[in-house]
Amino acid sequence: MGERSRGAGVGNPDVPAAGGPAGWLSGLDDEAARRRDAGLRRELRPRAAGDGAVDLAGNDYLGLSQHPEVLAAAADALARYGLGATGSRLVRGSTEAHAALEAGVADLLGAEAALVYSSGYLANMGAVRALAGPGTLLVSDAYNHASIVDGCRNSRAEVVVAPHADVAAVDRILSGRQARPNSGRAGQAAGFSGPPAGRQARPAVVVTESVFSVDGDLAPLAELHATCRRHGALLLVDDAHAVGLLGARGAGAVADAGLSGQPDVVVTVTLSKSFGAAGGVVAGPRALVAKLVDTGRTFIYDTALPPAVAAGALASLELIRDGDALRAESAERAALVGKRLVGHDVSEPAAGVVSVSAPGPAEAVAWAQACRDRGVAVGCFRPPSTPDGRSRLRLTINVGVPRAAFEKALDIIAECAP
Amino acid sequence: MGERSRGAGVGNPDVPAAGGPAGWLSGLDDEAARRRDAGLRRELRPRAAGDGAVDLAGNDYLGLSQHPEVLAAAADALARYGLGATGSRLVRGSTEAHAALEAGVADLLGAEAALVYSSGYLANMGAVRALAGPGTLLVSDAYNHASIVDGCRNSRAEVVVAPHADVAAVDRILSGRQARPNSGRAGQAAGFSGPPAGRQARPAVVVTESVFSVDGDLAPLAELHATCRRHGALLLVDDAHAVGLLGARGAGAVADAGLSGQPDVVVTVTLSKSFGAAGGVVAGPRALVAKLVDTGRTFIYDTALPPAVAAGALASLELIRDGDALRAESAERAALVGKRLVGHDVSEPAAGVVSVSAPGPAEAVAWAQACRDRGVAVGCFRPPSTPDGRSRLRLTINVGVPRAAFEKALDIIAECAP
Repeated sequence: MGERSRGAGVGNPDVPAAGGPAGWLSGLDDEAARRRDAGLRRELRPRAAGDGAVDLAGNDYLGLSQHPEVLAAAADALARYGLGATGSRLVRGSTEAHAALEAGVADLLGAEAALVYSSGYLANMGAVRALAGPGTLLVSDAYNHASIVDGCRNSRAEVVVAPHADVAAVDRILSGRQARPNSGRAGQAAGFSGPPAGRQARPAVVVTESVFSVDGDLAPLAELHATCRRHGALLLVDDAHAVGLLGARGAGAVADAGLSGQPDVVVTVTLSKSFGAAGGVVAGPRALVAKLVDTGRTFIYDTALPPAVAAGALASLELIRDGDALRAESAERAALVGKRLVGHDVSEPAAGVVSVSAPGPAEAVAWAQACRDRGVAVGCFRPPSTPDGRSRLRLTINVGVPRAAFEKALDIIAECAP
Repeated sequence: MGERSRGAGVGNPDVPAAGGPAGWLSGLDDEAARRRDAGLRRELRPRAAGDGAVDLAGNDYLGLSQHPEVLAAAADALARYGLGATGSRLVRGSTEAHAALEAGVADLLGAEAALVYSSGYLANMGAVRALAGPGTLLVSDAYNHASIVDGCRNSRAEVVVAPHADVAAVDRILSGRQARPNSGRAGQAAGFSGPPAGRQARPAVVVTESVFSVDGDLAPLAELHATCRRHGALLLVDDAHAVGLLGARGAGAVADAGLSGQPDVVVTVTLSKSFGAAGGVVAGPRALVAKLVDTGRTFIYDTALPPAVAAGALASLELIRDGDALRAESAERAALVGKRLVGHDVSEPAAGVVSVSAPGPAEAVAWAQACRDRGVAVGCFRPPSTPDGRSRLRLTINVGVPRAAFEKALDIIAECAP
């Protein structure tokens, strides 16, 4: 959902604990009042099972969270393993369900190895930190997800935020990085010119989402990779919103760009979107996965994903492999949004996310609420949670929704427009 | 599991991307070789369902991960909601199962409100960051969990690590914190002495686990709270290893110390230990939960816990409330460890974690392996993953294990001792 740090930081610097408990509590109330005045309050709306809402808000792109084979696999593992994994992956939490899922995801993505985390958030944090440390230059797309931003912060690397999807800017940043001395000997002869032999550019990592979660646009992955390769930088891609939808067998945007298994490409995916489950995965060279197992804090010190969820995700993986018909339906529906919402500013969807501009934050909130009142769940994104300061509805394609209900929902969205 | 940063950081600073893909990959191999030489490789051992191992390694303290009522509640919610939550809590992921669980946990803990996260890791990160920002003094116990350490790093607060369970040290740190000017006016008169009226000490937060995860000892919570109160600091307690086991109705160590609902105490718990499920919770004043919902990055930008897991955890909550017999059995077994392992250095367990010293890391590894070979799963903790540099077996009490099998396992552990 874009560079989320702005919204999330509201009020933080002033908050804590001055003046004892009473001061703290009244401070919290003051902050809440400021957020209310600024239109920054958020509301949890717990839904009932089978609430009848037409889903154009979630990330269940292929409808697999409800698929009978997925539910059967999860129910079977629940009965066999119990509910929780009962420990971290290294202590007691690894089951055959996790191992099978990891083998399956690595195979789908064309990666040497894969490692399952309890969430995409922790997978992204783990991946960034395994690739970058103090001394690394991290080049992060301005619209990257909060989990990538947190990973960057925790890595202690130098982070440069690149303009969104701007390959030329990434190239300039990588070109300008300072060389660091490789040893005391070389490259110091007087009058030396030409390439700095004996010195090497410091390590660099470029990190981006593939399909971005607010507008649904696709990063220029092939060009980014070529730029990375030229500069000896690694490319880390969060393929969360593309796996299942893009590429042969739904292998994702990285595969679709011809980058599967490239030794300088690391991919993260989530199991909570097209897979209809929960959890995250880091996929890449076997030696990277070994490093994550040996040293990755968000892997080692976290309770494993419940085995039933892993088993359900593995069932989804098989459905994704064979899901060409689902992908075709998803693409058709995504293209339909712009046709039905004539006169609106509708983004060009690369996969299952479409955004529709609203005149302002208040109008976006009212629009989303009007849709909800008529039984259509849509996402509502406003500043500071949007990367570009614009307010919009975010619509997602869930092919589990009957086609007629989906089309009717588009009509309702048009009718509710401000 | 103690201050995990040391182990997890091994190799990190030197790693990334210099020399292009080949250089990176050979660098990963070099690092792996260094970790191997230092005895720092870790191994995933996927278990089969019903592998027959006697569990003295996991955190399923009350055996609830296997309880029929828990499994029935999870299976029912799986059938009704599907597998994944299909979105973040604010977009599409909040269900009635989450809301009911939050109400139940708040009631159990005696807190005004509670908020469920997809993991304890993300709950801890979220709690620390909601309480502390730049300008805050964070006093963190030396043995705190990696998720707390990461939360501290991400908060950008000044972090002072206090010696383990040392109230006097915390008092000294809080006493020594620098005052910050409250406004330009006050406290600047020449010759001013006495209490710094018009200036206030900068905000401070003390963060600790209650029952620590390696040795199973209990933090001096009442004393820490008194110290915090005297200095106007907040107390954040990770009650992961105590909820379900300590306190009336299993309400945890914070409740047991008489601190339930105190306005300057915030509690985190995990749903992956006594609850036998997965996920984490932050519990505290209602205004804090509102802040987390409005601004907490690890809450807002993370897919919700699967509804089936939330429903299972709620069933566990009811069993925990009525679990006096389970708690009595757990305490009896914990006390039995020292009696059976005569001649060994056995920690004094406050709840369900007991540690047994080993002569060194190699002996600990061999000891744990010998136990495993005889069908007893135990934890093996070595430097740099132990907070004090000592190697040990970590034994956990799971009252779901039949009593006879538990006692036999203690004999096997004794027989396998180096």
